[in-house]
Parts: sequence; C-alpha cells; structure tokens
Amino acid sequence: MKELLAQRVNPDVSSALSGLFPQDPNPTAITFAAGSPNEKLFPVKEVQAAFNTAIEQEGAHLFQYQSSQGNPALRQKLADRIAKWGNVTTTAENVLLTVGGQQGVELVAKALLNDGDDIAVEVPTYIGALAAFDLYRPRYHAVGLQPDGIDLDQVEATMQRYPHTKLLYTVPDYHNPTGITMSVDKRRKLVELANRYNFVILEDTPYRDLGYEHAPLPAIKSFDTEGRVAFLSSFSKIMMPALRTGWLVADGELLQAILKMRLASDLEATGVTHAAINAYMDHNDLDAHIRAMNDHYRQQRDAMLTGLRDYFPDEATYTKPAGGFFDWVTLPKGIDAGQLMLNVISPDAHVTYVPATNFYPNRDVHNALRLSFSGVDPATIDAGMHRLGDQLKAAVRQVNPVI
Amino acid sequence: MKELLAQRVNPDVSSALSGLFPQDPNPTAITFAAGSPNEKLFPVKEVQAAFNTAIEQEGAHLFQYQSSQGNPALRQKLADRIAKWGNVTTTAENVLLTVGGQQGVELVAKALLNDGDDIAVEVPTYIGALAAFDLYRPRYHAVGLQPDGIDLDQVEATMQRYPHTKLLYTVPDYHNPTGITMSVDKRRKLVELANRYNFVILEDTPYRDLGYEHAPLPAIKSFDTEGRVAFLSSFSKIMMPALRTGWLVADGELLQAILKMRLASDLEATGVTHAAINAYMDHNDLDAHIRAMNDHYRQQRDAMLTGLRDYFPDEATYTKPAGGFFDWVTLPKGIDAGQLMLNVISPDAHVTYVPATNFYPNRDVHNALRLSFSGVDPATIDAGMHRLGDQLKAAVRQVNPVI
Repeated sequence: MKELLAQRVNPDVSSALSGLFPQDPNPTAITFAAGSPNEKLFPVKEVQAAFNTAIEQEGAHLFQYQSSQGNPALRQKLADRIAKWGNVTTTAENVLLTVGGQQGVELVAKALLNDGDDIAVEVPTYIGALAAFDLYRPRYHAVGLQPDGIDLDQVEATMQRYPHTKLLYTVPDYHNPTGITMSVDKRRKLVELANRYNFVILEDTPYRDLGYEHAPLPAIKSFDTEGRVAFLSSFSKIMMPALRTGWLVADGELLQAILKMRLASDLEATGVTHAAINAYMDHNDLDAHIRAMNDHYRQQRDAMLTGLRDYFPDEATYTKPAGGFFDWVTLPKGIDAGQLMLNVISPDAHVTYVPATNFYPNRDVHNALRLSFSGVDPATIDAGMHRLGDQLKAAVRQVNPVI
Repeated sequence: MKELLAQRVNPDVSSALSGLFPQDPNPTAITFAAGSPNEKLFPVKEVQAAFNTAIEQEGAHLFQYQSSQGNPALRQKLADRIAKWGNVTTTAENVLLTVGGQQGVELVAKALLNDGDDIAVEVPTYIGALAAFDLYRPRYHAVGLQPDGIDLDQVEATMQRYPHTKLLYTVPDYHNPTGITMSVDKRRKLVELANRYNFVILEDTPYRDLGYEHAPLPAIKSFDTEGRVAFLSSFSKIMMPALRTGWLVADGELLQAILKMRLASDLEATGVTHAAINAYMDHNDLDAHIRAMNDHYRQQRDAMLTGLRDYFPDEATYTKPAGGFFDWVTLPKGIDAGQLMLNVISPDAHVTYVPATNFYPNRDVHNALRLSFSGVDPATIDAGMHRLGDQLKAAVRQVNPVI
C-alpha cells in the first residue's frame, strides 16, 4: 500500500499535530501542553438556547444544502466586527466561514502553493500551520521574531534572496507559541513589503480578542491596499472549539481562488452551527462574554509569569505575553527540552509542555518550550510551575556544573 | 495576483460545482437540476431534541476540542450499521467522520495522488468527485457503465495499459448521475482486479439506503481482503445535508494516511453535530425514518419514469433507477443538452437539469442530461416533464427533420 500513497503523506514522519499531548494517568499530572480553552468559561446554556432559536426560526430549510461561503447574516456580523475591532473595511461578500481556523490556513496554502514553492514563516510558528503547509511541500524560509513582532529586515532579506516567495505566514496577536504581538508600525511596513515584493500575507489571529492589557490592534489587513492580505480568525478561542467555525476575509482573485478550493474540498461548512452562532450573537453580548473570559485568563497568565519568576532557573529567559494562551521559555543551549520532558520531567514530575522542535519547519531548535496557561487554574499553575522549575534548575546545573 | 495562484486553481476554468443550478425567478420554474433531498422529509423536531439531549448530557466538554476521527459512540453505530446493511466486518477504529461525503473524496485523493498520477473513473460520474480529484491534477482514464454497473473489461484494459493507476472511483449504488446499481458479482470481481493490478477502490455510496425495490446490496468493501477499498457514505441524504457528516471506512496504512491528511486539513469535524446524530440514533429508529422517506421518493421516481414514457421523444433513451435521486437521459447525437437548456428550455419553458458535459472529466459528451426527482413532488414532476418533453421533441425534430 505504501507505494500507492502520495508523497505529501510522508508516512515515515508523524504529523506535527499528532502525539503532541501525551496522556499521563498519574493523578497529580499537570499539563501546560494543550492550547485548549478553559471549558469552565464556555457559554453552554446560551449556545444551547441559540441552537433552539435557530432551528425554530428557520425550520427544515436550515438543514438543507446552504451556501459554500456560509450564513450571510453571520458573515455580515463578522464584517462589522472586524471593522470595529480591527479597523478593516470590508463586506459580508468578502467573508468565508471555514471549518475552524485550520481549514482557513489549508485553503490559503491550497490556493497558492505548487510543489516546492517558496514561503516565509515566523520561527517558531504554529504547528498546525506547518502541518497544513507541509501538504503542499513548500520550501520554507524562516524569519525570526523580535519583542515587537516579526523581524522586517529578515523579511526583506528573504524576499531579495528568494524573489518568488509567494506567501508569508504570521500570527501577529499573542503569537502561538511565543505570545509576542506585532507593533502597529510593523503591520503597516509588512504590507509595504508585500506590495513591493509581490507576496501574500496570511494573517492568522485566533487570539486577537484575548488581550489582557489593551484593546485589539488594527489588523494587518487594515493596511492592505492591493488585496494581498488574507485575514483569518476563529470562534474556537472566544466561544468554543467544537463549533468548528473559523472565518477568513480576503479580496478579489485571491478570494475567488480560495472559494473554489473550498467548494472542491468539502462543499460547505455546517449551516446549523453558523445559524446558532448568529442567534447567539443576536441575543448575547459576545464582547461582554470575552471581557469576563479575559478576566480569568489574565489571572492564569499572571500565575504563570509569577511561577516563571519565582521557580525557574535564572538561566531561562521567557516572554511576557499581553494576551493569548502561551509563554515561550528559552533554556541554555545544550538542553534538549524534548528529551528532558520525555525522559525526566514527565515520568518524575508529571508535568508536560510542548518542546520547541515542533514549532520549527526544520525541527532544528531544541532548547526551548511552549507553556500554555489557558486550560489550568492559577493554583494548579503555581503547583505545576514549582515542580517544572525545580526540574529545569536541575537540568541547568547538569549543563553548567558549579565548579 | 493571478501569477501567485497555484496551478490547481486554474482560474480560467470555473469549478464544475459552481453555477450548476441557475436561479430562474419565473414563478412557474421547475428544476430537475439540484440533487438536494426533499426538505419536507427532514426529521427537524427529532434532531432539535437530539441537539438538546447531547448538550444536556455532555455539557461543556462537548464543546471542547474532541478527536480528529470523530465521536466514538457514533463511529461504533456506523460500524454496526455497515455490518448489518453492507456485510462489512469492521470496527469503530476504522471509521472516520468527515465534513460530508465531499471531504471523504478529497481526503482519499489527497492521500494517494501526486500531480499527474493515473486514476480511473466511471463516465459519467459525480461532479463533486471530479472537482476534488482536479485539485491533485491526475490523468483521468474513463471507464464506461453498463446496466449492471461498471464495465469490468474496460477496467482491466485500463489497468493493463496504465499499470500505475492508483485509484478507481465508483458510485455503485443508484449511481450519480445515472441511477445504475453495480451487481454483486461485479463488486466481487472489481476487488479481484484491484488485488491483481494493485489499485485502491473508492466506493462512494451516499444513496445506498435509498432503494425503492430491494434492500441494500453487500458493499464492495465487504469483498475487500487487502485493505484496498475505502468505503464512503453520508448522513446528507438519509437525514440532512447541513449536518455535514460523512463517514469513511478504511484499513491499515490507507486509513493512517487519510487520518494524517484530515488532521492537517481541518483538525476535526463538528463534535456537537456528531453527538446530536448519535443521540438521534439512540432515541429514534433511523431505518424506520428511511423507509418512510423511501415511500415518498419512490412516488417521485415513478412520476419521473411515467413522464419519461409519456412525454419524451422516442429517440431519447433513459435509465430506470431502483433507488437514489437521478435519471440519465441520452438524446440523439447532435443535440447539445447544455446549449439547448441555456438558450431555449430554461428561457422558454422554465425547466432546468444538469447537462452531460459536467459529468465527464474531459467535458466531451454533450447529448445527455441528468434529471433529479428528489426535490420535486409528483404533480410538479408531471408538469415539468411535460414541458421538458415537448421541448426535447422539438429539438429532436430539428436534428432529424421529417422528410
């Protein structure tokens, strides 16, 4: 059978997305690995009511084949929403509802990439995006991150060296995995570079509403003058993942290409769910829900930053996210965070995280890790960070023995 | 922008799936084009209750990230179902829930096809499958249909001539667009050919439960001895399309490859909907629903066959489907069913259908058309067939003038 499989399957390499989150049956186990939202914050009753409202209002026709682009009323709400919170002027006709943000990434890749095409990605970057891009076997060019976001000099150097680069992928808000946010000035300049060097920007921003310090910044898409930016967000983090509803904003030929790929891939997404989200937004204040949720996540973020300060070795450096779910910790060179977790920290201390290698297209960085605070309450974060910090201190001592 | 798009987008050729169903605002318009199920037969109240049951039983966790493969209880029910009705022995671990049947086709194509790979398809065949395959730019080999299904001599000749053919796509039950059903004997022999010539069979069977003359036949998958058959079905026709839930049964390396593609494409399908379908099946008799539905569709099918007999020109030949949604009509050579509909029948008689060209990978057959009886009640079918028959008689007279 193996000889019949497509090259993209690459059966000898497991998906970057699979096996990420090892199950530890130990009752004291604490995981900072999964980037899942906190279930306790889900508006379950309101969403149940919204399903009933949608079904009662629309009846049988709601369950018929709908449109490939998705529920028009919900698309209008999203166009209004990104105008209000992201300074993007657009229309419902430019919005496509996707099966989670993941499908949005896959569709943009599908619409742009031939085998071996050049693309630029931030490093580290979102694992699921790498998995989607891998399907189209691109040549990756890595661009570093600075505290105010992507390194524009590296972007420009990449485009000069690889002038056929078609796509740059970025997570500008509370970046996964580092928590970094791109400055407004860099957003504007990144679009200028896209215009100058003729590439598309995929702005993937599932966390943009989850800010714990300030309102959302203008989207990169708000500076787009040539239809070069595909904006992508999702209801997974601000409502619930199992609604499987992402949304993409694009223009012109790029939008048409994405729509064509969508139609051929799965025809359309779940009309019932879209109508339920629309009814939820009619009868509830989504922004009030997000504010209440952010009050919780802020405490979780603070507990993690306190743990980093109090328990981690001085040799470890870490980011200070102003929102989102993640913190990125860099350890001294010579420590392999993956091996350490697998062989020592998970079996002995029953704490897990995601090692750095998964976030790099070439899997060539080992001395860093992603911590997620989204699924764990502050007391558990404190306990887990204490145990993890002790383990990392021991590991650092082994690398740098005190003489 | 065009120069940045992938070759698969082929922006100069519109998707086979788009623009299929022109909207005619005339109040007397009748469409035999759309293959949509009859909304009046949807179990709306029961499905609404099932959403409530699922949400109340599982609570917040139902809305969390679930599994990429889909709800285990529903997968077990589907494994049992295909054992009972298709003679396939399998397990829940071999079932994958997809976003409609369409995603199942796309994932199998994605798991198997490199650019330019050889695949075999029945002609005519399902438009959406061609759209999904087109994404992977295969070399198509057309295999004809006989009254008892695929022409096995042509299959064998194709495999001898193109020994690297990886995939054969077939709709064995109440075929879209012809309504033909493959005999049990041919199913067994097709698997023998797959074993001998080393190819995969994609058995796409969304209509298998919609038989108006007999119980479903054993699936092609039931004869599979080497894990070469991917079986695909869907809830779109037996329950409702907007549930967007298809299901795929596969084995071994092929299943693993498909799962990997799925994870990278959209992570997972809608857990809430899966749980609702599962609750529906717990509290309702799906087979009783299907029987009641089939009583209606049988009347619609009969009305169409009566119309074909009474109103169509003698020069037209047509199939006699024992189930499903479709009838296939062949006109004398020299009649272009697409041009005829666009220029004459739709504007003058306000009746629409899908012209043959859409169902051929090379779009090279013009003198045939697909009629769907699924969305139209018997009286409307009679009226529409009368108008359509008159038009076709006139068209035939023009081609074969009486001397």
